[in-house]
Amino acid sequence: MKAKIVITPKKAVLDPQGKTVQAALEQMGYEGVTDVHVGKYLEVDLEGDDAEAWKPKIEEACHKLFSNPVIEDYEFTIE
Amino acid sequence: MKAKIVITPKKAVLDPQGKTVQAALEQMGYEGVTDVHVGKYLEVDLEGDDAEAWKPKIEEACHKLFSNPVIEDYEFTIE
Repeated sequence: MKAKIVITPKKAVLDPQGKTVQAALEQMGYEGVTDVHVGKYLEVDLEGDDAEAWKPKIEEACHKLFSNPVIEDYEFTIE
Repeated sequence: MKAKIVITPKKAVLDPQGKTVQAALEQMGYEGVTDVHVGKYLEVDLEGDDAEAWKPKIEEACHKLFSNPVIEDYEFTIE
């Protein structure tokens, strides 16, 4: 079983990496890109097949280890 | 419209960041985590609503700018 976790900067937080990528895209001639956000992606391989039992553990790990909840949002799926 | 891009290290490539996260999870008492992969996530806001027209452009940007195709895989959705 696998947990797929996406961590993104909160909308109110400056995202200099995203702005840099957006500027690079413009310089490369891509038109029509209005915004870019850069975040992290984690894939966690899990033993067993009880997604419901893993859910609170992954939630806690997201909060404590994977993300900084002050400036980042996270969401995950377990499948 | 929005492109959501996930970039992960290829399976054959060492992923020291993933190993570090896995070790941290073990130390924090999480049992049953067999592997962790750490990658990047990008959200690109796009003008218009023609997903098919954007597809080759995003594919190209993934290859040239977002990822290092020698050591990373990418996949994306446009919605």
